[in-house]
Amino acid sequence: MIHDILWHGADYNPDQWLERPDILEKDVELMKKAGVSVVSLGIFAWATLEPEEGKYNLDWMEETIERLHAAGVKVDLATPSGARPAWMARKYPEVLRVNADRTKQLFGGRHNHCYTSPVYREKVKQMDQLLARRFGRHPSVILWHISNEFGGDCHCELCQEAFRGWLQKKYGTIAALNRAWNTKFWSHEYPDFSYVESPCPHGENELHGLKLDWKRFVSHQTTDFMKWERDCIREIVPDAKVCVNMMNRFDGIDYFDMAREIDLASWDAYPLWHRPDQTLEEVALDTAMMHDLMYSVKGKPFWLMENTPSFTNWQPMSKVKKPGMNIFSGLQAVAHGSDGVLYFQFRQSRGSSEKFHGAIVSHDCREDNRTFVETAQLGKILRQISSVAGEHKEKQAAIIHDWSSKWAMEDSQGPRNCGLGYWEEVMRHYNALSRLGIGVDFVNGDSDLSGYKLVIAPMLYMLPEAFAAKLRAYVQAGGTLVMTYWSGVADETDLVWLGDAPHGLVDVLGVRRCEIDGMYDGETRRCIAVGRGMPASAQGSVLCEVAALEGASPLMIYNEDFFIGSPAVSVNSFGKGKAYYLATRFEEGFYKPFYKTVTDGLLTPAWAGELPEGVLAVRRGRFTFLQNASEKPAEVDGVEIMPYGTVIYDGKKRIL
Amino acid sequence: MIHDILWHGADYNPDQWLERPDILEKDVELMKKAGVSVVSLGIFAWATLEPEEGKYNLDWMEETIERLHAAGVKVDLATPSGARPAWMARKYPEVLRVNADRTKQLFGGRHNHCYTSPVYREKVKQMDQLLARRFGRHPSVILWHISNEFGGDCHCELCQEAFRGWLQKKYGTIAALNRAWNTKFWSHEYPDFSYVESPCPHGENELHGLKLDWKRFVSHQTTDFMKWERDCIREIVPDAKVCVNMMNRFDGIDYFDMAREIDLASWDAYPLWHRPDQTLEEVALDTAMMHDLMYSVKGKPFWLMENTPSFTNWQPMSKVKKPGMNIFSGLQAVAHGSDGVLYFQFRQSRGSSEKFHGAIVSHDCREDNRTFVETAQLGKILRQISSVAGEHKEKQAAIIHDWSSKWAMEDSQGPRNCGLGYWEEVMRHYNALSRLGIGVDFVNGDSDLSGYKLVIAPMLYMLPEAFAAKLRAYVQAGGTLVMTYWSGVADETDLVWLGDAPHGLVDVLGVRRCEIDGMYDGETRRCIAVGRGMPASAQGSVLCEVAALEGASPLMIYNEDFFIGSPAVSVNSFGKGKAYYLATRFEEGFYKPFYKTVTDGLLTPAWAGELPEGVLAVRRGRFTFLQNASEKPAEVDGVEIMPYGTVIYDGKKRIL
Amino acid sequence: MIHDILWHGADYNPDQWLERPDILEKDVELMKKAGVSVVSLGIFAWATLEPEEGKYNLDWMEETIERLHAAGVKVDLATPSGARPAWMARKYPEVLRVNADRTKQLFGGRHNHCYTSPVYREKVKQMDQLLARRFGRHPSVILWHISNEFGGDCHCELCQEAFRGWLQKKYGTIAALNRAWNTKFWSHEYPDFSYVESPCPHGENELHGLKLDWKRFVSHQTTDFMKWERDCIREIVPDAKVCVNMMNRFDGIDYFDMAREIDLASWDAYPLWHRPDQTLEEVALDTAMMHDLMYSVKGKPFWLMENTPSFTNWQPMSKVKKPGMNIFSGLQAVAHGSDGVLYFQFRQSRGSSEKFHGAIVSHDCREDNRTFVETAQLGKILRQISSVAGEHKEKQAAIIHDWSSKWAMEDSQGPRNCGLGYWEEVMRHYNALSRLGIGVDFVNGDSDLSGYKLVIAPMLYMLPEAFAAKLRAYVQAGGTLVMTYWSGVADETDLVWLGDAPHGLVDVLGVRRCEIDGMYDGETRRCIAVGRGMPASAQGSVLCEVAALEGASPLMIYNEDFFIGSPAVSVNSFGKGKAYYLATRFEEGFYKPFYKTVTDGLLTPAWAGELPEGVLAVRRGRFTFLQNASEKPAEVDGVEIMPYGTVIYDGKKRIL
Repeated sequence: MIHDILWHGADYNPDQWLERPDILEKDVELMKKAGVSVVSLGIFAWATLEPEEGKYNLDWMEETIERLHAAGVKVDLATPSGARPAWMARKYPEVLRVNADRTKQLFGGRHNHCYTSPVYREKVKQMDQLLARRFGRHPSVILWHISNEFGGDCHCELCQEAFRGWLQKKYGTIAALNRAWNTKFWSHEYPDFSYVESPCPHGENELHGLKLDWKRFVSHQTTDFMKWERDCIREIVPDAKVCVNMMNRFDGIDYFDMAREIDLASWDAYPLWHRPDQTLEEVALDTAMMHDLMYSVKGKPFWLMENTPSFTNWQPMSKVKKPGMNIFSGLQAVAHGSDGVLYFQFRQSRGSSEKFHGAIVSHDCREDNRTFVETAQLGKILRQISSVAGEHKEKQAAIIHDWSSKWAMEDSQGPRNCGLGYWEEVMRHYNALSRLGIGVDFVNGDSDLSGYKLVIAPMLYMLPEAFAAKLRAYVQAGGTLVMTYWSGVADETDLVWLGDAPHGLVDVLGVRRCEIDGMYDGETRRCIAVGRGMPASAQGSVLCEVAALEGASPLMIYNEDFFIGSPAVSVNSFGKGKAYYLATRFEEGFYKPFYKTVTDGLLTPAWAGELPEGVLAVRRGRFTFLQNASEKPAEVDGVEIMPYGTVIYDGKKRIL
Repeated sequence: MIHDILWHGADYNPDQWLERPDILEKDVELMKKAGVSVVSLGIFAWATLEPEEGKYNLDWMEETIERLHAAGVKVDLATPSGARPAWMARKYPEVLRVNADRTKQLFGGRHNHCYTSPVYREKVKQMDQLLARRFGRHPSVILWHISNEFGGDCHCELCQEAFRGWLQKKYGTIAALNRAWNTKFWSHEYPDFSYVESPCPHGENELHGLKLDWKRFVSHQTTDFMKWERDCIREIVPDAKVCVNMMNRFDGIDYFDMAREIDLASWDAYPLWHRPDQTLEEVALDTAMMHDLMYSVKGKPFWLMENTPSFTNWQPMSKVKKPGMNIFSGLQAVAHGSDGVLYFQFRQSRGSSEKFHGAIVSHDCREDNRTFVETAQLGKILRQISSVAGEHKEKQAAIIHDWSSKWAMEDSQGPRNCGLGYWEEVMRHYNALSRLGIGVDFVNGDSDLSGYKLVIAPMLYMLPEAFAAKLRAYVQAGGTLVMTYWSGVADETDLVWLGDAPHGLVDVLGVRRCEIDGMYDGETRRCIAVGRGMPASAQGSVLCEVAALEGASPLMIYNEDFFIGSPAVSVNSFGKGKAYYLATRFEEGFYKPFYKTVTDGLLTPAWAGELPEGVLAVRRGRFTFLQNASEKPAEVDGVEIMPYGTVIYDGKKRIL
Repeated sequence: MIHDILWHGADYNPDQWLERPDILEKDVELMKKAGVSVVSLGIFAWATLEPEEGKYNLDWMEETIERLHAAGVKVDLATPSGARPAWMARKYPEVLRVNADRTKQLFGGRHNHCYTSPVYREKVKQMDQLLARRFGRHPSVILWHISNEFGGDCHCELCQEAFRGWLQKKYGTIAALNRAWNTKFWSHEYPDFSYVESPCPHGENELHGLKLDWKRFVSHQTTDFMKWERDCIREIVPDAKVCVNMMNRFDGIDYFDMAREIDLASWDAYPLWHRPDQTLEEVALDTAMMHDLMYSVKGKPFWLMENTPSFTNWQPMSKVKKPGMNIFSGLQAVAHGSDGVLYFQFRQSRGSSEKFHGAIVSHDCREDNRTFVETAQLGKILRQISSVAGEHKEKQAAIIHDWSSKWAMEDSQGPRNCGLGYWEEVMRHYNALSRLGIGVDFVNGDSDLSGYKLVIAPMLYMLPEAFAAKLRAYVQAGGTLVMTYWSGVADETDLVWLGDAPHGLVDVLGVRRCEIDGMYDGETRRCIAVGRGMPASAQGSVLCEVAALEGASPLMIYNEDFFIGSPAVSVNSFGKGKAYYLATRFEEGFYKPFYKTVTDGLLTPAWAGELPEGVLAVRRGRFTFLQNASEKPAEVDGVEIMPYGTVIYDGKKRIL
């Protein structure tokens, strides 16, 4: 069901308007006009559902669902656990989070419950099962929206205990933990597990192993809470489909782990369109990268669960989407594998913190409002191209993105505390491939690499033995690997590997790291080509490794500083495959010609010919999307595409 | 008495010098030389007045008053409640403030008592009445200085309870409060008033209605505390005159409310003269604006209660006033309605945090010190022009400045969180009118608008029904209204009005807001003139509204982006009056020609002819002041005015 | 012993590698290859030495010392008090520090014990004496390394009590304290000593006298703790030599006081070599200044206790030392009086916060690693020039650097809160003299000034009566004094002197301060020469004093602003000596010609002729060092010095 059509919808919060039945009636009418086929219902409705402990009020929700049902609008039914009523905070303070400084939060805000609290889990169970019993089998309820935008951590005693239990299960003995975290350093050895406390500003905050495991535990515990909610629902409705809405470049949860436990991945996309410091194409690629990550976490179509039809209210600056931009962004999501385009929210709130967030229906309540008109247009288009729904994407290139590796690398002190720019590095590879029309997935150490012709390891700091072996086997069997500087540094508990580096891959890469030098912002080192298919010169920055060739052929070398002549790019044949090594971060312009050379004859772009600047081609199964992410009209094969315009082919047949 | 002459004086803290009778003697002698006619006495003297609980020591104060009396120096007698003795903090911790994070402050600093504490109020009563009994009828005591620079908030349980009581009185039922604050959002509904807590970083901090009412409550409670002190004094001295010293652009108290309760408004002015990033004229206008606000809060002459004769010590950088600047700034205050020019302080302290704040008498104790010499000169001038004292100002233009509207607008998230620049907007209107020689008052929703030919509503975000009706009636009856973008958005509890906007004034303005787009810093949109009397072109910035004409005539239109052709300035005839609408913030240069057009034939400038750049003309009743706020000599009607120079006319007669 | 040779070594932490006997064996082998003659052992080893309370494990240390002994490597034995085991923190929470906000720290980090806690002192005593008994007479143990990098403060009740006791001892009566701190201001008078609390953000934080004495107390208490450790060791080993490792420009401890109590001064130097915003010479001079301060605190050779052979991991950016730089920096320390060149650390850690700090032995464990190779080269050179060891330096110029004066000046509000740039001022004098080859010592008010031909008082804000008298006598007797603006302002409790300033020296300097004006960043005032030997013009900045000549001859005068014509530089003859006064901070280029004029005929440079740019000459007794602190080869007297190169003469004989 959730992949049957291209869904169009929004968060819907009728609980804010119960005193205005005229508006509730009007809502359904406007949904039809806007082409809304699904709404996420009740995300923060707990106080209305249970105004006093044990006193429930679900009738308004039933009436809403029936009203929507009558209009053919399906429901993505939310559990309301993202915020809780005031009475609960007062009666059961343990449900509230404790900050890292060990102060307990007061009631207020949202996304701030303790994930461990048995009381909160019990209360959530009661509520979720009540909803499941009453609405779980309603024909309109096609999906469950578990809580909202999970994130953050809690440092209460319940969580401390859970953390200790998690560590004990992981390490078995305190000696093993002490070894893994190298606690001898600064006399930080733990006599037993009871001594471990979460990292905090006024206590332990430099023990990298502890901090890494705390991040892993928080990710685990959050997912565990989500599973609790899922299982409570499935106890009543065994075949319930569940989703969570994830966030842009969110660091706090390993989404690969969480995605395993749900039926549908989805995310909330709020790119800063029309910002003056980036081109439209750059913003579009940044957004596309996250779409592809969302596709990748389950390897199948996802939903764009939230975006704005106009502007947000919480970013430092959010410009209104210009005419055409909302259609562009919705179709971009579809091109990259989304089966839904939903908004926050259907109708603008009158008060509190998000009252100026854009919505399909604005405060002026007018149907001639531009936002409303353009949203309705997109609704029509989505119905028109609904055959795209459910279509999968071909495996081409894979970029390794491992949450643990990123956590460990960024928390480490050195070699460049003023910024490693991890995502900036990833983007350079992603953008170059995207501009070449090569489809990109994201993988981690647990992923199956087979089927990928190209695997890229940007700053793969943490490289456990098994993952190194997997990469070796991948190249051996004929795969092409591109690995960068600052890879293969540490093991899975962030102990630095002793001996030659990148650990376990020196012979695969034919290169050994000797030194690594940080560059100040703006500082660069000139590199020049010595092999074929490389740009004549390029500037290295951020981190410059000095490497020794151990069999590889240099393609670019440094041309200044004491490491003049050292390889900056090299390639090595290993088994049936090839391994490239990039010893520094190059300027953006390096990557497209580099990947042109790497992918030539290896992968087939989404569009055969050359594309005008700003036009992006994306293949989704048998469909090809061309989008003009520029401010100028473009022509592709005799078809003119206006700025923000989209052309879609089903095979060779143009369907938009 | 307080409006009989132009007073000249300073804060005087003899309690710091009791061990130096030679200095106390010398002080009075130097006061006479400096032309000091009044001093503010005993502002922070509590520890000296009551060194132990119930053990009083007022003799030194009596001696001081007598010594001053003998020299003809009057006294503005302070209540010492701005700081309290250490013994009180230890014995009655409730007198100390609790921060937003719910930690209680330790003893120290100043301006940090709980405004609610019954103990503190009782202690203040005892002290104030003791002073009143002993000195209240002394012929030299002409004024009471209630506490000092009121400000800040306290989050203790006493204040929480007072806040809840204030809310209950305001809303009656919790349902009404929940509705007004839209607490359904994020399940923030309050079961009853006992659940309400002040906003805080670790609890509720995004519920705009709560935060707005907290600001209102703090303002109310502070004024209530001030009234308590006033009434304690009046219980003993029924005809005592009281004042408070207010602060530049201070946001925490609605000074319109507070001013109603006092006899004399006054403020502490510390402009950054000679800063390299502003012209002298700009700093002068910035200061003048605040003088005019101080005049406006009571609609009558005020006092410049504090300023520095030389430099401050608490600003990031404070240059010494150059020769002539102290006389300039003192006379500027007088021009704008002040009947006093006072300094902080008479004699520089030897130690603690303000030891390097400038004073009439410096650490070198010399009478040939430039600061002393120039201050004495000003004393002489003030006596010479004393006929200005008490003179009122004519009603010309009024700018609406409403504390609640500003609070609500600035606390809201969106449409531009990186800065709305409220005062920047106000300044543009104020400066243009001032440069045209038009006198400006400030008003709020409670003010009587009659008598004003021109009313300006810059960013009047909050527009209650009754205020909209008042503005409508004002225009209907022949008034001229200038309203800007982002006006008429929300009601008095910060619920956004539904339907067309600016709420209640669409027909008056002949314009309806359709969209609002934020501009990044530095981003602008070109506008061009299509009506008469407008500059040919101007750049819009910060926020650009897209509006639909509903009867108004466009004067300027946007000339780029998707809203090209939309009105940027329009004018509408309504009843006997006119209403202008400015849909964006223009560059500074736009406003002077715009207001020239608006005021032509409507208002009479302070000076008939054209003035040289940097020369400002101000009318105060029958007196006209010309000040050269530039670094170059200027000539006006054959009279040369040196840089920082002032020329004063009584009617046509030059008196300085 | 500690001055017998030029020591070469490193921190050594075998406790992190006890499970790897192969590595421990390898370590000693590599030490020999690297020319290591001494190691600092056991700095953070407490948890390994005493894994449970009272259960000791010192065998591994004995084995280590024997292994080192066998290899001829001496030991600087550390007390492990810089961090403590987890069991101690849990059982005796009083050992943990309390922050200024009165929250107690949790276990973790380092350098965070309470200096007052009797429990901690007792535990430290047990541990230190255990080490002393077992290893104190071992022939290899030549030095004791007391704790590590002392710093920070504790606000617990034990410290509060100690602070009150310290104050009572200092002031005798509370009345004296109240007078000294001018507590009448803002009613901050203390009824008795029990009311005094340490400064804190939520209490007293603007009472300068309190804050100054708190800094003095913290410095005192830290030194007292250090003395406790020293005396515990000497109880067992009466002739034990002790050192502490100090830090670059560390503000928290008066190192003159602390140095009196130890046998050997040492410091940890981590200059940012190769930073793009400074020349190599500038970084070198910055480092040299601290070397000279370390020499000065005891007036005899010190040790460079820590530096990196390659890079650090804790600075925002730390570039790897380029080829030759490690040798340059090591020899620079020797030139300025160091008898040791030691590193942090011998072998890189595998985990926790410093795992990416450079070390002699890197993670790759290779002997062909460039860092290892160059370190070994330096080891060889140090043996070669070992005759330099123990050599003293000649007294030439002295710069006054008084911790109390700096504390008081920087904590004061005014006259320029956006930055006084104290070290920037000091640097200008130091650099000019160094570029002229004049040796510089640092002195404070307790120092003996005899022997110095030139004494410089940059921003000597605090000038007690006795120090003013000493400076007067110094000039009277024939000395040359250079004093700058913002000197002679306050007495020893930070009460501002009343009357003419600089206090007590107006006749000596022949100049009286009238006004002081702050300059904004980038704002300058032009000055021009009116006397001989001065640059034709120079720009004043930061603070510009307006002074009246009282006998001095002007050498430079201001040429703009209202103080045009005022003296900017003046000179006065007093007794047999001369006193210069600089009324502002000049641009860097002013100081070298100024000091050329001042020192001509007074002092003999280290090198007779003119030196190429970037080449620095330093004299240490009979030895002369020439170092090329530039990126270009230089020639001095026919000898070519490569970039980063060093040439050393013993008398006229070149020894390197």
